[in-house]
Amino acid sequence: MFGIFGSPDAAGMTYYGLHSMQHRGQEGCGIVTADDSGRLCCIKGEGLVHEVFDESRISRLKGSMAIGHVRYATTGAGVIENVQPFMFRHGTGDFALAHNGNLVNYAQLRSRLESTGSLFQTSSDSEILAHLIKKVPDRRKQPRIYSLIEALQQIEGAFAFLVMTSNRIYACRDSNGLRPLSLGLLQNGGYVVASETCVFDVIGATFLRDVEPGEIVTIDRHGLRSNFFCEKCRHAMCAMEYVYFSRPDSDIEGRNVHSYRKESGKLLFDEAPADADIVVGVPDSSLSAAMGYAEASGLPYEMGLIKSKYVGRTFIAPSQELRDKGVRMKLSAVKSVVKDKRVVLIDDSIVRGTTSMRIVRMLREAGASQVHVRIASAPLRFPCFYGVDIKSREELISAHHPVEEVRAMIGADSLCFLSEDGMKAAGCLSDLCLACFDGKYPTALHGANNKIIKRSLCAEL
Amino acid sequence: MFGIFGSPDAAGMTYYGLHSMQHRGQEGCGIVTADDSGRLCCIKGEGLVHEVFDESRISRLKGSMAIGHVRYATTGAGVIENVQPFMFRHGTGDFALAHNGNLVNYAQLRSRLESTGSLFQTSSDSEILAHLIKKVPDRRKQPRIYSLIEALQQIEGAFAFLVMTSNRIYACRDSNGLRPLSLGLLQNGGYVVASETCVFDVIGATFLRDVEPGEIVTIDRHGLRSNFFCEKCRHAMCAMEYVYFSRPDSDIEGRNVHSYRKESGKLLFDEAPADADIVVGVPDSSLSAAMGYAEASGLPYEMGLIKSKYVGRTFIAPSQELRDKGVRMKLSAVKSVVKDKRVVLIDDSIVRGTTSMRIVRMLREAGASQVHVRIASAPLRFPCFYGVDIKSREELISAHHPVEEVRAMIGADSLCFLSEDGMKAAGCLSDLCLACFDGKYPTALHGANNKIIKRSLCAEL
Amino acid sequence: MFGIFGSPDAAGMTYYGLHSMQHRGQEGCGIVTADDSGRLCCIKGEGLVHEVFDESRISRLKGSMAIGHVRYATTGAGVIENVQPFMFRHGTGDFALAHNGNLVNYAQLRSRLESTGSLFQTSSDSEILAHLIKKVPDRRKQPRIYSLIEALQQIEGAFAFLVMTSNRIYACRDSNGLRPLSLGLLQNGGYVVASETCVFDVIGATFLRDVEPGEIVTIDRHGLRSNFFCEKCRHAMCAMEYVYFSRPDSDIEGRNVHSYRKESGKLLFDEAPADADIVVGVPDSSLSAAMGYAEASGLPYEMGLIKSKYVGRTFIAPSQELRDKGVRMKLSAVKSVVKDKRVVLIDDSIVRGTTSMRIVRMLREAGASQVHVRIASAPLRFPCFYGVDIKSREELISAHHPVEEVRAMIGADSLCFLSEDGMKAAGCLSDLCLACFDGKYPTALHGANNKIIKRSLCAEL
Amino acid sequence: MFGIFGSPDAAGMTYYGLHSMQHRGQEGCGIVTADDSGRLCCIKGEGLVHEVFDESRISRLKGSMAIGHVRYATTGAGVIENVQPFMFRHGTGDFALAHNGNLVNYAQLRSRLESTGSLFQTSSDSEILAHLIKKVPDRRKQPRIYSLIEALQQIEGAFAFLVMTSNRIYACRDSNGLRPLSLGLLQNGGYVVASETCVFDVIGATFLRDVEPGEIVTIDRHGLRSNFFCEKCRHAMCAMEYVYFSRPDSDIEGRNVHSYRKESGKLLFDEAPADADIVVGVPDSSLSAAMGYAEASGLPYEMGLIKSKYVGRTFIAPSQELRDKGVRMKLSAVKSVVKDKRVVLIDDSIVRGTTSMRIVRMLREAGASQVHVRIASAPLRFPCFYGVDIKSREELISAHHPVEEVRAMIGADSLCFLSEDGMKAAGCLSDLCLACFDGKYPTALHGANNKIIKRSLCAEL
Repeated sequence: MFGIFGSPDAAGMTYYGLHSMQHRGQEGCGIVTADDSGRLCCIKGEGLVHEVFDESRISRLKGSMAIGHVRYATTGAGVIENVQPFMFRHGTGDFALAHNGNLVNYAQLRSRLESTGSLFQTSSDSEILAHLIKKVPDRRKQPRIYSLIEALQQIEGAFAFLVMTSNRIYACRDSNGLRPLSLGLLQNGGYVVASETCVFDVIGATFLRDVEPGEIVTIDRHGLRSNFFCEKCRHAMCAMEYVYFSRPDSDIEGRNVHSYRKESGKLLFDEAPADADIVVGVPDSSLSAAMGYAEASGLPYEMGLIKSKYVGRTFIAPSQELRDKGVRMKLSAVKSVVKDKRVVLIDDSIVRGTTSMRIVRMLREAGASQVHVRIASAPLRFPCFYGVDIKSREELISAHHPVEEVRAMIGADSLCFLSEDGMKAAGCLSDLCLACFDGKYPTALHGANNKIIKRSLCAEL
Repeated sequence: MFGIFGSPDAAGMTYYGLHSMQHRGQEGCGIVTADDSGRLCCIKGEGLVHEVFDESRISRLKGSMAIGHVRYATTGAGVIENVQPFMFRHGTGDFALAHNGNLVNYAQLRSRLESTGSLFQTSSDSEILAHLIKKVPDRRKQPRIYSLIEALQQIEGAFAFLVMTSNRIYACRDSNGLRPLSLGLLQNGGYVVASETCVFDVIGATFLRDVEPGEIVTIDRHGLRSNFFCEKCRHAMCAMEYVYFSRPDSDIEGRNVHSYRKESGKLLFDEAPADADIVVGVPDSSLSAAMGYAEASGLPYEMGLIKSKYVGRTFIAPSQELRDKGVRMKLSAVKSVVKDKRVVLIDDSIVRGTTSMRIVRMLREAGASQVHVRIASAPLRFPCFYGVDIKSREELISAHHPVEEVRAMIGADSLCFLSEDGMKAAGCLSDLCLACFDGKYPTALHGANNKIIKRSLCAEL
Repeated sequence: MFGIFGSPDAAGMTYYGLHSMQHRGQEGCGIVTADDSGRLCCIKGEGLVHEVFDESRISRLKGSMAIGHVRYATTGAGVIENVQPFMFRHGTGDFALAHNGNLVNYAQLRSRLESTGSLFQTSSDSEILAHLIKKVPDRRKQPRIYSLIEALQQIEGAFAFLVMTSNRIYACRDSNGLRPLSLGLLQNGGYVVASETCVFDVIGATFLRDVEPGEIVTIDRHGLRSNFFCEKCRHAMCAMEYVYFSRPDSDIEGRNVHSYRKESGKLLFDEAPADADIVVGVPDSSLSAAMGYAEASGLPYEMGLIKSKYVGRTFIAPSQELRDKGVRMKLSAVKSVVKDKRVVLIDDSIVRGTTSMRIVRMLREAGASQVHVRIASAPLRFPCFYGVDIKSREELISAHHPVEEVRAMIGADSLCFLSEDGMKAAGCLSDLCLACFDGKYPTALHGANNKIIKRSLCAEL
Repeated sequence: MFGIFGSPDAAGMTYYGLHSMQHRGQEGCGIVTADDSGRLCCIKGEGLVHEVFDESRISRLKGSMAIGHVRYATTGAGVIENVQPFMFRHGTGDFALAHNGNLVNYAQLRSRLESTGSLFQTSSDSEILAHLIKKVPDRRKQPRIYSLIEALQQIEGAFAFLVMTSNRIYACRDSNGLRPLSLGLLQNGGYVVASETCVFDVIGATFLRDVEPGEIVTIDRHGLRSNFFCEKCRHAMCAMEYVYFSRPDSDIEGRNVHSYRKESGKLLFDEAPADADIVVGVPDSSLSAAMGYAEASGLPYEMGLIKSKYVGRTFIAPSQELRDKGVRMKLSAVKSVVKDKRVVLIDDSIVRGTTSMRIVRMLREAGASQVHVRIASAPLRFPCFYGVDIKSREELISAHHPVEEVRAMIGADSLCFLSEDGMKAAGCLSDLCLACFDGKYPTALHGANNKIIKRSLCAEL
């Protein structure tokens, strides 16, 4: 999610901004600009940023204000209608909206709205905020910010929202601060708002501050203004942003992601040393933790796994038959490096265990004499309802098997996870959301979701 | 506009159906199908039917029921958001909607709906019916057909609507019958509904009957049922459907279009004979009238103008400079045919006069000694508010100039139009809508439109 | 085939020129330009002209001289390597070549060239001329025109060749004049050379003269020069150019194609009148003949068959199953026109008879009471070795069946063909090539071809 | 370059093979297969492997034998005509050819061939071998291998050639062994030949042996056979293959590339230690050397530079204006990592110095207090005539400036290069081609090239 205000080339900047957050979503993307006359213009499509946009399309998006979005399908269908930003035509002014996160009381709100005649065009939970804003009674007589505050107060879950009208951008963050959202300053005095700070370096902006939990930052020609839509706020940043999701050159709530990961690798060595010859990380997200482990252990850090940099979405994946014959495109083990070596393999997490199993086997086939797996986070045992794509407990190998069983299933010589305390210590943070590790959800869960979690909790007992 | 019920290959049939109505709109097109579980699936895009759809896309549209639409931009922006059918997600069942025509009280209705919280996603007048249906109070307790009747009663203008739910298609036509809509029967007992009957021949269906003005035909597994949403109905079919818009192999309200045009050519000769050597029609829509004129006059009918059949939307149009140098892609005069001949040129209508001027000049450059222009309809003097793209009176040369001045402007040796009586006689019809010829609009015009027409009428006096 | 010399926008003009000859080949197309420094630049691809070229590609083709080609696959594989023009890199100067027609001693020449080390990159017969030019001994000491003359003298068959060097275009035509090639004059004094004269009207050029059989016209900054590479020449223009291949607005050897066809329709009535109500032509190539027949007979000429103008190459063709169910995209009969009528159906030729059979059946299904088929050319009984795609006698229904049997097979009430004398009389020409009708080939046939023809002739006896 | 013999899915395997050598060329690529009847089929295009090929195209390439090529434009124009493999049609059997490297006596050979009538279709030096093979006299009477040997004996330079006929693949390597070429064994007994061994892991083959300098390996249904086309051979592998060009998981002449690079980093520390806080490598090719330097020095290895993994060829590059404003897409410095640190920056080479300058500046702007640049190869001072894209001495900063000047120009606090002895020691190799470092070319240079090098050497004195 990216927004910009006061840049002569707003669409181009948004393009670069979205591009540097491409890792957050590859399903689709879109940009809405508002030109000087306040007219909104929207282009979106399925695919990567550079597939959806080219120079001619960017040049059709005129104006000094824009919001953009890259889509990461958390709900089933990756269809075009759910690609954001959403744009709404309204007699009091058109507006556009982009959302990162997941709402937990979405079904209840939608049902209530429909019963009074609201019509939805998508199956996305993100559309709901727009309807809530417009349903607030007497909205013509009060400033729009009050409608927005009232609407946000009805929503529960994890979110960062950008709402753009013809002359203003509103940037909002949920009261638990589960999803990141940061403000930056352009050289020319304009403003940027983005899900990750790495964007600021890319487009030449400087980091200003994070949007606070429960805050609405209004950006317009008067500069920045702040409102809070809720009184009780806390900092419970999603731990997976550090572990896996964000780019290593981003800072989240003041903590650099690469540094967090490297530190987690060091702590992982302290908690679980291994008698081995070399340290190998799974590219790309586990390399920092592997460096930390290597440094703490004094073992050499080696490039024992190579990830092809040209494997993209449009690539023809080898058929099962070809895979059985040994065709491996994405990741390959470097024989000359791992042959006859005892390898410590560092990965960021284990979800279903299938990937770990495959990598361990690959290393053994390449000649590794032992493979000791070390995971730079705790075992994943609970589903996430806040937008990280870990659907149900059924898929989580650690929800059903103790560590020793998991070790046997993936075929490793030893297996250890970083403790939850270690995860917090790596960031010097006391208030991470660790719900997918410990099941302590920071919000109510409502309706349908409760069923899943209840079933999960029952199974737990 | 096309709908089909009860065909195992509904999407494919819709593809062929839309394709054979391509002449009704080249801006964009879309298809929505409902599969056996009642799930709606939609694909649409900008461009011609064969550009938007290929086999893989058609195969993704599963189900035995479908509606489709080709878009002809009557309002400015040809943007993708306005390409139909529109699809709506709703707790009581998703539904889709396609519309042919133009609503005259659209602005009033939209403003009223927005003031009670409705959110529009397009700038199209067609979206309004969906909101009206859902705004009808207590709609859950009564059958959906009542909501539809109530909604249609609020709408004024020219329309044919198709509404598809998970198990049913509703086909509706306005109370003046301004836009055509016909029912056909598939060989397997399924039903088809289409704007033009030529579709039935193409897909192997047989013509059943027209949807009546003011009628709602419900098509579902019980067969056809009929409701009327209004009591006073009349047959005032748009004359331009005969003159220009429809395909010659379609029948409109029982009258074949080619036959209508040929008859209009004969009557045109009766009203306005010309002393000439050959008769030439402007391809493609004026060929039938030219045949009729030739037959009545005994003059040879010749191919004096050739239209390139490969000129499509994606073609690079010659620049003004190249046009000045003589580059003409679309239409060319056949020198060997028209050289030293007195030509009767038959065209279907004159809008701004620029095309006629160009063709007359082209014929003279190719050696024609005289060019007598005969138009197989009356002079266009009033704008259409019902969906035919004749924007304002400013553009209509006949609104501001008597016939003799028009003749001089287009450079013809003589110029005659068919009379309004002739237009009716050609179809044996007493109840055509001739509003763009005589200014007698069959509905109220409401708000903004009134201004245009008032200005026009003032200029008239 | 198209060439242009001395136009500031040579590539653009070639684009329009090729586009207006699109009917001569839809497989692929290409353009080679020579810029002011003499550098040749080539772009080609599979598909229609407007699919292969867009504005950016045309703008990359700089220079005031160009040749272009549209490919019509006479030999099996429609592969990209065979799309022309061909470009050759050579130390004495690069050159490009385009060819229309078919060479009969190609296999012998190629075998001879390969045995002395020549390497071919395509399977096309058109490449041979380039190798022959470069194989002429001592070619560096004599002007290039002598190499060209010597090379052309070795080739037998039907051809029109364009050869472009860095500063010159050579336009050549075979000694029997089987393929057309005409010269035109641009308004700015530049020259155009094209397979059909309709091109001249399109790009604003005026017809100058035809290239003569056996002539090489050299076009460069000195203007036009003429050489003849053979002494005994005759005019034996391919009859199918008049009957089917060329556009009606082209003139071939001074005779307009539409006029030829209309006259052939009149003569056809004289030879074979029919007792009927209406005359219907098969669109598009038989409309002129139908007009002639109608005019001579006094019967009304009606639009009883409609061809969809949006059916293109990329269209999804209905499956056999759908066709059996009645889906017909390309051509449909107009029920209201043909119902209860005795129809004279005019077509240009019958090849395998399947299309005729289908159209007759379609007319009957649409209600025609009788269908009298009249063909505006003689029965096709022999294969063409000169570039028209009539492969073998096996496919030609008239090669194996007398007229009465053919009539029964296509299901017509009566069937008549125009006589060969009628074909000549329509053009006031004594010297058409009628080889595919009468088996009298104007050249030797050589090797493999002889076998086919011999087998055919045996079967004949 | 990739070849495969005896695989049921030859085209698919070639696709994966080329894909894993994508780093060797991104301009274009092609595949030629030979099907069971010996018919060759070729598809090629401009762009990346996954852009040129999709499943439908791969499935059209039938047969159990294939060769493929990725193009890396060493000569100016990246035009489609120069994309390999080249295919030749010939009476004695079609054949295809792919080439990696650069020929130094190309101009002389081509001129000689053209003077006896050979026609070239490309401006590539690779086409020459095909013509030489076919020019060998009496070639029909002797086995084809003799023609190939005679042809190869005339060629000088760096090359690996694959020649495929209807039933056989020939794999050849130049007599100095400048370009790599290795043989692998498929699980089903078939053979693979590839420029890099990383391919074998990817497609599940095992490394067999390298093709020797001066060797022709014939692969057909009889298995492998070996011929030598020259008697005096040596091993002078291009050093840049180790330093920059090859993938880290490839082995070249028995030495793993990652291990070579890591060792070179260690030796670089021995030769040029730096007083610093962290070691940072330039991604991707310098990461191994950086690991080695860090390990030898005991300094932490940090991710101080991030390369965006989504930057591809089709990406919109920021304009100069945007770059000046700070937009940086490809590489960014991680502020939190380098801030207030003394950084050792490891790169693999310095060509023009502009990239190094930009990275040093970027690190300083991100807060690095000192930047010590260490290059894991010697200074580049001479052009390469063997296929590595280092065009002329003019571009090589180290050809004109001593190390201290270069240091000042790139703005580093210190700058050291690895010695040539160090380069050899890293690989335990005595016989690398180090021509671009020391000017000692292993072959004669011929004509035009000599001029460049002479000018260079003069400037040197």
